[in-house]
Amino acid sequence: MKKNQQAIGVFDSGLGGLTVLKSLMSNLPQEDLVYFGDTARVPYGTKSRESIIQFSKENVSLLLEHNVKMIVVACNSSSSHALTILRQTFNIPIVGVIEPGVQKALATTKKGIIGVIATPATIGSGAYPRLIAALDKHARVVSQACPLFVPLVEEGWLDKKVTFEVAAEYLKKIKQAKADTLILGCTHYPLLKTVLRKVLGNSVKLVDSAHEVSLVVKTLLEEQGLAASAHRRAKYRFLVSDQPDHFKRQAKRFLDYDIQNVERVAW
Amino acid sequence: MKKNQQAIGVFDSGLGGLTVLKSLMSNLPQEDLVYFGDTARVPYGTKSRESIIQFSKENVSLLLEHNVKMIVVACNSSSSHALTILRQTFNIPIVGVIEPGVQKALATTKKGIIGVIATPATIGSGAYPRLIAALDKHARVVSQACPLFVPLVEEGWLDKKVTFEVAAEYLKKIKQAKADTLILGCTHYPLLKTVLRKVLGNSVKLVDSAHEVSLVVKTLLEEQGLAASAHRRAKYRFLVSDQPDHFKRQAKRFLDYDIQNVERVAW
Repeated sequence: MKKNQQAIGVFDSGLGGLTVLKSLMSNLPQEDLVYFGDTARVPYGTKSRESIIQFSKENVSLLLEHNVKMIVVACNSSSSHALTILRQTFNIPIVGVIEPGVQKALATTKKGIIGVIATPATIGSGAYPRLIAALDKHARVVSQACPLFVPLVEEGWLDKKVTFEVAAEYLKKIKQAKADTLILGCTHYPLLKTVLRKVLGNSVKLVDSAHEVSLVVKTLLEEQGLAASAHRRAKYRFLVSDQPDHFKRQAKRFLDYDIQNVERVAW
Repeated sequence: MKKNQQAIGVFDSGLGGLTVLKSLMSNLPQEDLVYFGDTARVPYGTKSRESIIQFSKENVSLLLEHNVKMIVVACNSSSSHALTILRQTFNIPIVGVIEPGVQKALATTKKGIIGVIATPATIGSGAYPRLIAALDKHARVVSQACPLFVPLVEEGWLDKKVTFEVAAEYLKKIKQAKADTLILGCTHYPLLKTVLRKVLGNSVKLVDSAHEVSLVVKTLLEEQGLAASAHRRAKYRFLVSDQPDHFKRQAKRFLDYDIQNVERVAW
């Protein structure tokens, strides 16, 4: 098979990365995609750096067995802890979600005050403030770990009163700091946009990296001569380490699209 | 080493099993205990039967390497899916948490209406209603999965308004059914007793299996001649698969006791 006809491999700890996948499907309709959700070990956001690195390496190895031409790390916890090590370990282009989100946030903010919400692992890594400071030393960053957001999304409580109250609690510091831009630093969080807008008001711009990630992937494919020929019908493949049926049911909320087939891989 | 001086092995997906450990410490003060929390793969309650069985077998094998004389499965998700298979696989006495809780609930209920709250995995297994029906065919069981309770406990939001509202939502069906007894079918839930009492009122008796499990262990040790000699000072050992420092900090809320040393085991 010609290299440019190979698929792009995408992984996440579970479902959240489907927000990135959806954007890849719409911006790169000719590209085959293989998605892996590590649902046996989800979540990553409450785990240690060491474990996240180990899991991420295993996920890339798994995707390489499926003959992919590029890897998208569609998980903020993995991107913030493991991206550098993955790039050192594997000889394949690897795109993470942190930098595209930061670039968009810096292009969006007017006051230079940026809020970041993410899992404890991502916040603990310091990846967002470090990269923002490197690109704009005047920008101010206010970070907040939101460990209950992923379970709330997984439970499907996207617009319940309780979810609104949890969000109000988590966003206190960011509101007080008068941030005008909020990075959704976890691929689950775009599903909470309605609640986040209610808490913060419409003047705060919500930055979700999914769209930007797909643009970075597009540019990189073109630069490296890896883009698939246009006018072909792309194939999608979904792999998980646990609960394929649950994944299939939940995926619709992320993709607005019914997945036909989800395969469970054995470790 | 004489067999009766060997330790008892206890495992859970993470922290919750410490409620059982605490009861073993207080009712069997002469027994050495080795606790394993599978914090790299926590939670189990949202995973499949297959994964829970695989993880549980690996956990027993790990504890056997530490030369234990008995295993306590201090996790409802494991007990409900894996207990029978573990007993078939390993030649060692194994105690679960389901039966002791059911026995206590049946001894407690006056109206014969029993509520069960637990993780999706435990509820999905049907283990509680099946065992209750086998022991008392007149008892009525109302079950409810509460996937947000474990994350709320792990976040430390034990008496927040939000936690109260989540509980009110989850317990609706059980209140409507007028249950007079509620089985806390997850070892994390005893930490939510204050909230659960507020929602249900004091007339509903809360059944937490930790105390009963330690009585079952005590009887079994005596029957099998495995009890340690009295008047010795017990040793405790704590093993986790991830984040030993986090475990150490959180453990105090479960044990009212400072753990000196937590070891990370490599898989």
